[in-house]
Amino acid sequence: MENEKMSNRYKIILAYDGTNFAGFQSQPHQRTVQDVLESAVNKMSTSKNFVRIFGSGRTDAGVHALGQVVHFDLENRIPEQGIVNGLNSILPLDMQVLDAHIVPSTFHARFTTHAKSYLYRVSRGRFVDPFKRFYTGHYKYSLDIELIKQAIPDIIGKHDFSSFVASGSQARSHIRTIYNATVREDLGNDEVIFEFCGNGFLYNQVRIMVAVLLEIGNGRRPVHDFLRLYEVKDRNQCRQTAPASGLYLKKVYYEKDWPQNTITDFN
Amino acid sequence: MENEKMSNRYKIILAYDGTNFAGFQSQPHQRTVQDVLESAVNKMSTSKNFVRIFGSGRTDAGVHALGQVVHFDLENRIPEQGIVNGLNSILPLDMQVLDAHIVPSTFHARFTTHAKSYLYRVSRGRFVDPFKRFYTGHYKYSLDIELIKQAIPDIIGKHDFSSFVASGSQARSHIRTIYNATVREDLGNDEVIFEFCGNGFLYNQVRIMVAVLLEIGNGRRPVHDFLRLYEVKDRNQCRQTAPASGLYLKKVYYEKDWPQNTITDFN
Repeated sequence: MENEKMSNRYKIILAYDGTNFAGFQSQPHQRTVQDVLESAVNKMSTSKNFVRIFGSGRTDAGVHALGQVVHFDLENRIPEQGIVNGLNSILPLDMQVLDAHIVPSTFHARFTTHAKSYLYRVSRGRFVDPFKRFYTGHYKYSLDIELIKQAIPDIIGKHDFSSFVASGSQARSHIRTIYNATVREDLGNDEVIFEFCGNGFLYNQVRIMVAVLLEIGNGRRPVHDFLRLYEVKDRNQCRQTAPASGLYLKKVYYEKDWPQNTITDFN
Repeated sequence: MENEKMSNRYKIILAYDGTNFAGFQSQPHQRTVQDVLESAVNKMSTSKNFVRIFGSGRTDAGVHALGQVVHFDLENRIPEQGIVNGLNSILPLDMQVLDAHIVPSTFHARFTTHAKSYLYRVSRGRFVDPFKRFYTGHYKYSLDIELIKQAIPDIIGKHDFSSFVASGSQARSHIRTIYNATVREDLGNDEVIFEFCGNGFLYNQVRIMVAVLLEIGNGRRPVHDFLRLYEVKDRNQCRQTAPASGLYLKKVYYEKDWPQNTITDFN
């Protein structure tokens, strides 16, 4: 039994409204997801050592999460439901723990990720709905959804996304695999909703891809411009970035919850 | 033609997210709906005199509007669509003009009102959804919607609402007529949604009625407690007020758009 040291590693699923956060990563003099969550986690720790949290990845200022994943280690043992209730009683109203699991110490929120999915909401109409200004992007020009639907399959697969990466990226490779990409209209809310699932995404990749897809839907770009953009590897050909307010980190997949049977190209 | 002086009275339909407003009415050193809108209206006026706006009524801090009505007079003539586009290009993103009409000078946004409707959204569940904290009330205890449905008809009709008026009210009479009241469940969003239409509402009346209805749904009050509360005329019997964040001024009715055939008790 002595060798079998019990892990007190907790994996939590986290939702947050990104509006009033300066992004995920800790920054001095800024309100960040990491700082707010770490402050709450440390109130539940009996250790004198500061407990650091590890997220599946960063989200930018204004970007939302429906299912961000974070892990941390505590010296003390707390039941899973106690983690959920305890943290939610401490956290501010714009952040909420949806679920918690005790996981093996081999689990790492960032390094053991298999895939991630993002959702992007675009509201239409001449003006921005006051209730959506922080929760959607906005496109006031005409959109032909059928054109976008023709472009979407070009995104699925393994591609070099160098044309779709913002300048701040430190990624060594720009090759990523997109497992699924969809677009649908929410006519009741006058919105167009995109979803992307892939093995990883470059800095601002989703927001740049959405901007290109909207330009295709408006007829400003040829339907199969993605194929050309993979070749030219030039960000200057994709100058627009859809606003952070429309982007939601929807789900982070790990080995157990990754639907293996849907993988067509997984390296 | 000289006698027929042209009215430049404009009636506008206004939506706003009440979160960042200290209510409708102008106040020094506060951001109010009236001040923000008056500032925009005066930018469209050619007159040197300050143009005042008149709302159908006040909304409190945090209360939203889907269809507030406001009127104002301009010396200069602007087409209706020009009012909509012009104001929206000036207004901040949490306020939006939905429609504008040139109306006779006998129209008054407040004094010619026939009825108003309000919507109230209650989110359920143990914790507040981070994306709903400013847009719903929240009730974490159990609710039996059937009990609320039994109580709702007691609200419809002409009643003395003295038990349902907040202390700040300056109304001379507490008698109001409610034309319609409904409750429905939005199961997809885990919400309970109330709607009320009446010839007028006292200060905080909707929010106090919602709090009583929730207590009925939880079994803390008898189903027909409204009938007793009309008799006792005592606010101390209704201590709770549902939060402002769940309340939306939905529509203001004037003679032309008031559905006369649905009136059963209209004095």
